Amino acid sequence: MDGVDHLAPERSKAQFDVDDMKIVWAGSPHAFEVADRMSRLVASDPAFKKDHRPMLGRKELFKNTMRKAAYAWKRIIELRLTEEEASMLRSFVDEPAFTDLHWGMFIPAIKGQGTEEQQQQWLPLAQRMQIIGCYAQTELGHGSNVQGLETTATFDPNTDEFVIHSPTLTSSKWWPGGLGKIATHGAVYARLITDGQDYGVHGFIVQLRSLDDHLPLPGITIGDIGTKFGNGAYNTMDNGVLQFDHVRIPRNQMLMRVSQVTREGKYVQSTVPRQLVYGTMVYVRQTIVSDASIALSRAVCIATRYSCVRRQFGGKKGGLETQVLDYKTQQARLFPLLASAYAFRFVGEWLKWLYMDVMKRLQAGDFSTLPEAHACTAGLKSLTTSVTADGIEECRKLCGGHGYLCSSGLPELFAVYVPTCTYEGDNVVLMLQVARHLMKTIAKLGSGKRPVGTTAYMGRVELLMQYQSNVEKAEDWLKPNFVLEAFEARAARKSVNCAKNLAKFSNPEEGFLELSAELVEAAVAHCQLIVVSKFIEKLQQDIPGKGVKKQLEILCIVYALNLLNKYLGDFLSTGCINAKQASLASEQLRSLYSQLRPNAVALVDAFNYTDHYLGSVLGRYDGNVYPKLYEQAWKDPLNDSVVPDGFQEYVRPMLKQQLRNARL
Amino acid sequence: MDGVDHLAPERSKAQFDVDDMKIVWAGSPHAFEVADRMSRLVASDPAFKKDHRPMLGRKELFKNTMRKAAYAWKRIIELRLTEEEASMLRSFVDEPAFTDLHWGMFIPAIKGQGTEEQQQQWLPLAQRMQIIGCYAQTELGHGSNVQGLETTATFDPNTDEFVIHSPTLTSSKWWPGGLGKIATHGAVYARLITDGQDYGVHGFIVQLRSLDDHLPLPGITIGDIGTKFGNGAYNTMDNGVLQFDHVRIPRNQMLMRVSQVTREGKYVQSTVPRQLVYGTMVYVRQTIVSDASIALSRAVCIATRYSCVRRQFGGKKGGLETQVLDYKTQQARLFPLLASAYAFRFVGEWLKWLYMDVMKRLQAGDFSTLPEAHACTAGLKSLTTSVTADGIEECRKLCGGHGYLCSSGLPELFAVYVPTCTYEGDNVVLMLQVARHLMKTIAKLGSGKRPVGTTAYMGRVELLMQYQSNVEKAEDWLKPNFVLEAFEARAARKSVNCAKNLAKFSNPEEGFLELSAELVEAAVAHCQLIVVSKFIEKLQQDIPGKGVKKQLEILCIVYALNLLNKYLGDFLSTGCINAKQASLASEQLRSLYSQLRPNAVALVDAFNYTDHYLGSVLGRYDGNVYPKLYEQAWKDPLNDSVVPDGFQEYVRPMLKQQLRNARL
Repeated sequence: MDGVDHLAPERSKAQFDVDDMKIVWAGSPHAFEVADRMSRLVASDPAFKKDHRPMLGRKELFKNTMRKAAYAWKRIIELRLTEEEASMLRSFVDEPAFTDLHWGMFIPAIKGQGTEEQQQQWLPLAQRMQIIGCYAQTELGHGSNVQGLETTATFDPNTDEFVIHSPTLTSSKWWPGGLGKIATHGAVYARLITDGQDYGVHGFIVQLRSLDDHLPLPGITIGDIGTKFGNGAYNTMDNGVLQFDHVRIPRNQMLMRVSQVTREGKYVQSTVPRQLVYGTMVYVRQTIVSDASIALSRAVCIATRYSCVRRQFGGKKGGLETQVLDYKTQQARLFPLLASAYAFRFVGEWLKWLYMDVMKRLQAGDFSTLPEAHACTAGLKSLTTSVTADGIEECRKLCGGHGYLCSSGLPELFAVYVPTCTYEGDNVVLMLQVARHLMKTIAKLGSGKRPVGTTAYMGRVELLMQYQSNVEKAEDWLKPNFVLEAFEARAARKSVNCAKNLAKFSNPEEGFLELSAELVEAAVAHCQLIVVSKFIEKLQQDIPGKGVKKQLEILCIVYALNLLNKYLGDFLSTGCINAKQASLASEQLRSLYSQLRPNAVALVDAFNYTDHYLGSVLGRYDGNVYPKLYEQAWKDPLNDSVVPDGFQEYVRPMLKQQLRNARL
Repeated sequence: MDGVDHLAPERSKAQFDVDDMKIVWAGSPHAFEVADRMSRLVASDPAFKKDHRPMLGRKELFKNTMRKAAYAWKRIIELRLTEEEASMLRSFVDEPAFTDLHWGMFIPAIKGQGTEEQQQQWLPLAQRMQIIGCYAQTELGHGSNVQGLETTATFDPNTDEFVIHSPTLTSSKWWPGGLGKIATHGAVYARLITDGQDYGVHGFIVQLRSLDDHLPLPGITIGDIGTKFGNGAYNTMDNGVLQFDHVRIPRNQMLMRVSQVTREGKYVQSTVPRQLVYGTMVYVRQTIVSDASIALSRAVCIATRYSCVRRQFGGKKGGLETQVLDYKTQQARLFPLLASAYAFRFVGEWLKWLYMDVMKRLQAGDFSTLPEAHACTAGLKSLTTSVTADGIEECRKLCGGHGYLCSSGLPELFAVYVPTCTYEGDNVVLMLQVARHLMKTIAKLGSGKRPVGTTAYMGRVELLMQYQSNVEKAEDWLKPNFVLEAFEARAARKSVNCAKNLAKFSNPEEGFLELSAELVEAAVAHCQLIVVSKFIEKLQQDIPGKGVKKQLEILCIVYALNLLNKYLGDFLSTGCINAKQASLASEQLRSLYSQLRPNAVALVDAFNYTDHYLGSVLGRYDGNVYPKLYEQAWKDPLNDSVVPDGFQEYVRPMLKQQLRNARL
């Protein structure tokens, strides 16, 4: 039955032009073209196959990753790919590798924190991959709290060197990807000590392994930190442990853009504003938000397609059973995730703009929008990654039992995704940063200084405290303004309530700790408002294509009303809406689900994912699931022999009542 | 530092007697004694070590499971263990194996559905493990909907045999544990066809493999269905695929307790009531609820202990950082899960009683409580397994980055647990069954017949519809009655609202489908009420031990108020409580968290888990985490060599700019 499109009936039901939607999803015709070309390049090349990944042992898996990474680099050079194309190609190879950290963290660290001279020295080597770098920051005993790092870099004026040292077990570098087995160099973060004084954590370029025989240099102990969650997944990465025993590096390997140590050992701040460093953080977190929409959309694509293939219960006597996507319970779980994927895509796109705007301002010496941009990216990183991690697992459950098979692709997608909730700022810690920013914003409201950007609505706080929704019928909830105002009022009131409760504490820090769970709730409300408002803004743009805008409007309202339903306690307890209006929202939501239903498959087709990238038998484009699941099963190593190795030694004596003499 | 108890300061803070709490958790001094003895027996025997499980390839992993299963059986025989002890021992071995299905499904199927004669024929063989059975029900295309199964068992009166056949690909049996590689026999479910008529799905005992050479019998195709989610985890189980090509079995291998086929091919119902079969379902689901409390408590134990070891931010200058368990955000996420573990333990205990009560009644011909018991176990299975699956993952996140390492034990605990949400009834499908029962209960309210058991509160529906909470101050929420009434009123109103909305549909089934998402919400509210009320009932018993009852009272209120907070939309929209009362509940909750804090480690010690059973470096009893994490890392196969296999072929040419000639 190969070649038949089992989902064709679904595709023919769509009420919009999928090709136009593909452009909207990609962001631009150019972005679409590059992504499309690169994904096909990878999918069509047998060297990038990922079929058996979940069944490989760790060593074999890692070897395979090295091969793919080298091959990808070879192709990038052969095809003279641009930086954009190269990075796309790597992402479609879809296998975490040491090269990710080299390109994503090591090179940006040098660019962001290195002087012109240092950049000239190191970047060409790194960009030709003559050295491979990692980013060695976190330690065995220290994660989120960078200021708590214990590794030391002590300046020795006698030799003009820094001595890098791990004074304790807990100071061992722990987690850096690429470190365990591959990296030749590291951007190493350590407490700078000179002249007997501790100047806090700074970055240093340290060579870790010999470029001749790849052995760790003297005084350096390195290894892999062990197997991680899931089959395949992040086990293709050599997250590492690293200890220094008084390792010496030349003074000029301290990353000196922002501060320097002189030949005499004097600590000097440069004129480059420290805030530029925060720009990098905004950049990294913005890419995480974009990646969230991709990861979530992959899971949603698999679950949506399979929900059309899978049938259960309810068929007319003797006829086919009902497609599970026709069940309201399935829709109520899946469609909000579909809407979230689109919502995160658009807020990610906006964050890209925000990053560029902030950088332009920083370079012009305008730091005014930085705190808001920083809080906003921190919050959106937290929000989108949490929803995505849970959403992938929800999609797996939505596929029933078969979602539990590695051939569904969902277990690996989940396992490889979840660390995103922890790295680059733990999601709860980040929300507390947002809350701190919100409390500051409220505290300044009296001062006449208007809040900017995503906190601008706080400027209307008095109005918002009075707000009561005017929704009278279910269709009113289709109006973006009704939705937006309800979200603004809820967010403002949650924050104001926190501020009021904080004021009751004589020690504000103690209050912040005591009320932190509530503060997180206020921050979440604020971040959800941002996503809703950016989706609405997107819809105010000109969006070409038959029926495309209509679908996006539905998705936008589904996103918002589902949140309203899920966080109803917030909306009701703050009095923004009443119970009747809440029930109208549910009613409207059900109606929107029915409108989405015929478009569901086309809406996931618009992501334009190849079967290679999805890596899921359940999510196959052609819907030919069961024969392929069956085929896939026989490839498991356990099916290499009919009678399994070990049966004769262990199980046969059991059956034959001869266990007494068996060697177990 | 081995031998030092790093958590001793935590343990000394406890305000209750841990040994007494251990008895409460276990259920009785006897239950404690058996569990304690069996868990130590397993933990102290090197043959049961599980250290390297997540790093093994599938074949090696499976071989190891066969060895352990055979060894466990050998020890059971040698030590002449009772059935209770044997089952405990198997559970502490803590590795899914074909024996689980043999003891847990195959033997019970024969006991429940076989005639006296069949039991005499098959049980002795099975109980001596001279045959090993599996339970072959689900098919590639058919999961929850048993009536949709396609496998046929056609009676051939010429030979007095049934012909078992798989007419389509989707009719392949798929998922049965133990089937893939080991089972010699199966309880096979197939559509019974005799005299040209289809009598629906019935059970048959079918021999699958030769007892001589273990090869599949003629006409039978069997294999493993492939790698599943996670490292180790359920990959120790040989979930299988099975196809029949006109396989013949004697007529007397149909399980004939409830219905029979005569020599002439006539289908006859026996006098044994069909309802007895539902008793088995109540039994199986009750064990799943008990197991939920165990799985959740293991995760909570790991997260709680490590949250005391782990420190982050906030320390006084130069001093130690703050233990993360001191953060309110950590408490607000972890303590409700701790409370849930206890809550599920007690509701599981009560379900055991319910099962016995139902069976006693059934045997006396009293079927009156069966529908309620059936709905109640279905709902509690759904509720507790969903919360547990999410809870394990939450505990993993609460351990920060290190929770992502397999050595934390949490990835495997999660991956091995999640299928529980799907098997024995998909959790959403089960909640819809509960909702159906609730709607029936409401429909009958006018009839004068009082609702029984866990739906008894519906008898007071008129009062509950009027209910408004009298809570005036935070401490009022400590009174069980205030809590119970609010939960009753919320559950009743959610159900009544659904019933009202259903009444608007001319076709009730259509209404049920359209409103299914709301109906699930009502069912969840009902099930949460059951858990809360059974916890409160438990506290009305005499509970000995210094300070024990006090801790349980705190946990009970934490369980309830956290739900109230999480489902606040329900409570507010139904008008059971107001916003002020909700805020008082939050305030009370915070205060209870502070009261739990010093008792947290002792409350997880009360689970009495050995380090072997926990299988977590982070959850070690002695809290000696970091040195052991470090030690564990070096055991990864990737650390077998300093320069990884593949480096010379793939990475070296990259570094040396010689990729052009590399073989990739």
